Amino acid sequence: MTERLLVIGGGAAGMSAASAARRTDPDLPITVLESGPYSSYGVCGIPYYLAGVVANAASLIAHPPSEFIERRRIDLRHGVEAVALDLDQRTLQTSDGETLDFSTLVYAAGAEPIVPPTARTRDPRVVTVRSLADAMVLRARLPEVARAVVVGAGYVGLEVADSLAQRGVSTTVVDRLPRVMPTLDEVIAERVEAEVRKHVELDLGSGLRALQLRTDAVVVELDDHELAADLVVLALGVRPRTGLLADAGLATTQEGALLVNARMQTSHAGVLAAGDSVAHHHRVLDAPAYVPLGPAANKTGRVAGTVAAGGDATFAGVVGTAVVKVFDLEVAHTGLSLEQAMAAGLDAVATDVTAMSRAKYYPDSAALHVRLVHERSRRVLGAQIVGTDGAAKRIDVVAAALHFGSFIDDLAGFDLAYAPPFSPVYDPITQVAQAAQREANRPSAVLGRVGR
Amino acid sequence: MTERLLVIGGGAAGMSAASAARRTDPDLPITVLESGPYSSYGVCGIPYYLAGVVANAASLIAHPPSEFIERRRIDLRHGVEAVALDLDQRTLQTSDGETLDFSTLVYAAGAEPIVPPTARTRDPRVVTVRSLADAMVLRARLPEVARAVVVGAGYVGLEVADSLAQRGVSTTVVDRLPRVMPTLDEVIAERVEAEVRKHVELDLGSGLRALQLRTDAVVVELDDHELAADLVVLALGVRPRTGLLADAGLATTQEGALLVNARMQTSHAGVLAAGDSVAHHHRVLDAPAYVPLGPAANKTGRVAGTVAAGGDATFAGVVGTAVVKVFDLEVAHTGLSLEQAMAAGLDAVATDVTAMSRAKYYPDSAALHVRLVHERSRRVLGAQIVGTDGAAKRIDVVAAALHFGSFIDDLAGFDLAYAPPFSPVYDPITQVAQAAQREANRPSAVLGRVGR
Repeated sequence: MTERLLVIGGGAAGMSAASAARRTDPDLPITVLESGPYSSYGVCGIPYYLAGVVANAASLIAHPPSEFIERRRIDLRHGVEAVALDLDQRTLQTSDGETLDFSTLVYAAGAEPIVPPTARTRDPRVVTVRSLADAMVLRARLPEVARAVVVGAGYVGLEVADSLAQRGVSTTVVDRLPRVMPTLDEVIAERVEAEVRKHVELDLGSGLRALQLRTDAVVVELDDHELAADLVVLALGVRPRTGLLADAGLATTQEGALLVNARMQTSHAGVLAAGDSVAHHHRVLDAPAYVPLGPAANKTGRVAGTVAAGGDATFAGVVGTAVVKVFDLEVAHTGLSLEQAMAAGLDAVATDVTAMSRAKYYPDSAALHVRLVHERSRRVLGAQIVGTDGAAKRIDVVAAALHFGSFIDDLAGFDLAYAPPFSPVYDPITQVAQAAQREANRPSAVLGRVGR
Repeated sequence: MTERLLVIGGGAAGMSAASAARRTDPDLPITVLESGPYSSYGVCGIPYYLAGVVANAASLIAHPPSEFIERRRIDLRHGVEAVALDLDQRTLQTSDGETLDFSTLVYAAGAEPIVPPTARTRDPRVVTVRSLADAMVLRARLPEVARAVVVGAGYVGLEVADSLAQRGVSTTVVDRLPRVMPTLDEVIAERVEAEVRKHVELDLGSGLRALQLRTDAVVVELDDHELAADLVVLALGVRPRTGLLADAGLATTQEGALLVNARMQTSHAGVLAAGDSVAHHHRVLDAPAYVPLGPAANKTGRVAGTVAAGGDATFAGVVGTAVVKVFDLEVAHTGLSLEQAMAAGLDAVATDVTAMSRAKYYPDSAALHVRLVHERSRRVLGAQIVGTDGAAKRIDVVAAALHFGSFIDDLAGFDLAYAPPFSPVYDPITQVAQAAQREANRPSAVLGRVGR
């Protein structure tokens, strides 16, 4: 058997895996197949490229191919698709007609945008924003776009709407749900919604039925009305891109995400997986969860590559932390929302506070809304923070608490940094933890009241 | 014995204690003696009031006296000094000639600025910045001040120098040490020093010998030269204000800070203490330490008041977190510096990284210097972060880690928030933790190299 590490996918996870493998074993032959023309770029940067905040697509590329090919001696091939995979024979057929042998595989093909059957078209006015190449084509077209419809009010849809609005495009965001960002509790989502409505149209509670591809416009047919647009962006989320493994019998979650252990090993010997194809261990749920985000893609890639090359590494899992800029609002969450916690059968409540981001007398201090979700047993389950100042990275304190399975009393006891330009003397996180303690100390009948 | 809670000191700790006691026991008689004319104000806000960033002194006052006296039914007395205290008889003589009985005492007299014998004068051109009343007098005088000397290059000295520079005062900061901010390691302090030198004169390594109080100027005599000024600000740190307890035989640290347990009880039954008179339990050192800062003053006050009124509360201690804005630089630290760790006999090393505050392609992304101090056994001991963007509150993640006695591997595993406007995909904290892991995995002989 040829000694070769084969990596399928040249995104963050795949290139992290290849690089980590090279660091672990200076001599291991490593081949990476990337179906697109670019590798190692930040998908998360695409909205900022579309907005023009980032001038050049090249800026989104973490390292040029030469870095991988020459300096790290990785056989990185662009525009090559993996066509068929035989895990038992350890061979791969490529779109070039080549058969590649490998001793170890890191599967890092990522995720693909969900496109409903009604929206499957090659019309260039109907797009997704998942690949840099597509984003470059789209950006070039934006000067001709007056009206856009973004389908999907999740975080990507809102980021893209923000970008389009910055480019002067009259934009409407539609969603079949009656709310934005379903990973947030409604009381928080409402604040996001109010911000979105300041900048673009928001058309909630009406699902996409069909697209009419007319010469002069794409008509978006919704349940009870229609919208005409020059551009339709589909932002309906992603799913693991694991079609190549369909017959391989690898263990997956119900939604098709690969199940792996902490060393990123799949159920098949010699086959590892990383990134957005994989379900990560969710420390709060203590179960696999599909949370395809950048940091975990990079970390799991690194672990998979290290282990694939004979080194030792483990992935600590995720707690479900995410942050997004929605126009002028920072929206951050970690762990479980109250809705998610209740859906998981946990005896959960939520405590809400409004706190200032800096000392109240300091300029630019702004209100933050902080929600802490916790069990009646006082275990912290999650948090959500929204505000125009200092919301984003404050969530990390709760993420750290969740890493350790903390209680609200731990959180209230954290020695957080204070100076008037940066925080009130009781940080908003301390304030919400103190409020949660007060709630938890009341008779339990009263507790439900704060939830919603 | 009269049932009465007596609180000495109307600062953050004292008023937190009185308020917490009232919440715990609606009927308890509570008296607070505050020697100055103002209570419940943020000492930390004084530099911003001097700079004019905060327009009115009233803004620094958390609650007006009426809030305490009328709404919380607290007998708050301003301008009344505690003259003599008999802990066995539980009586206090006041400067009004009154004798007050009490059943429980919360001692929260705070700290007093250190003033060397050579600088003890009533000349209004020589000041400290610890009381709001003094700050109001000083601010009124600032239009007449052309040249100022700040004695002491700790964080308060640098904050005041920043304020004076903003008011157009030509300012020199002097310190007998050859460096600024001794709580930082030198490699970090050097960055702060470079920032300070962009804005004011810095005169290090020359101690204060004497002050000449001339009509036209105060001449500051240093070891080898002298400086003339219209204003001299003494910022040489503080010490616990515990003179009233001198004969009471309470247990203290060597520097005179009161020793308390987690319920803020001193060694004398019925006597509790809180705030800047107290040594806090330092979780990293697992020993009492004198770290007089605002958040702990508020928290310990709250605990002392709750316990004094018959409730239950404990203080989790500190890990030594602090942040300061020095001109355009955010300077944050938590836990132990490498110097402090080595002084404590720990087998410590430091790992340094320079990381961007946001995605490298995102506007306003700026370099952060992050130092992680850890034991060779991989336990996290502390961190220091400096930068112009996103340094301040990032320290809180390490503060949370220190709360739990974490290892560098925990820190590297935290699921921290990522979006391009707020962080690189590997947060700077993750980056320094990963670098520390790489250092720790090398042969130990190499480890010392990164320390300094």
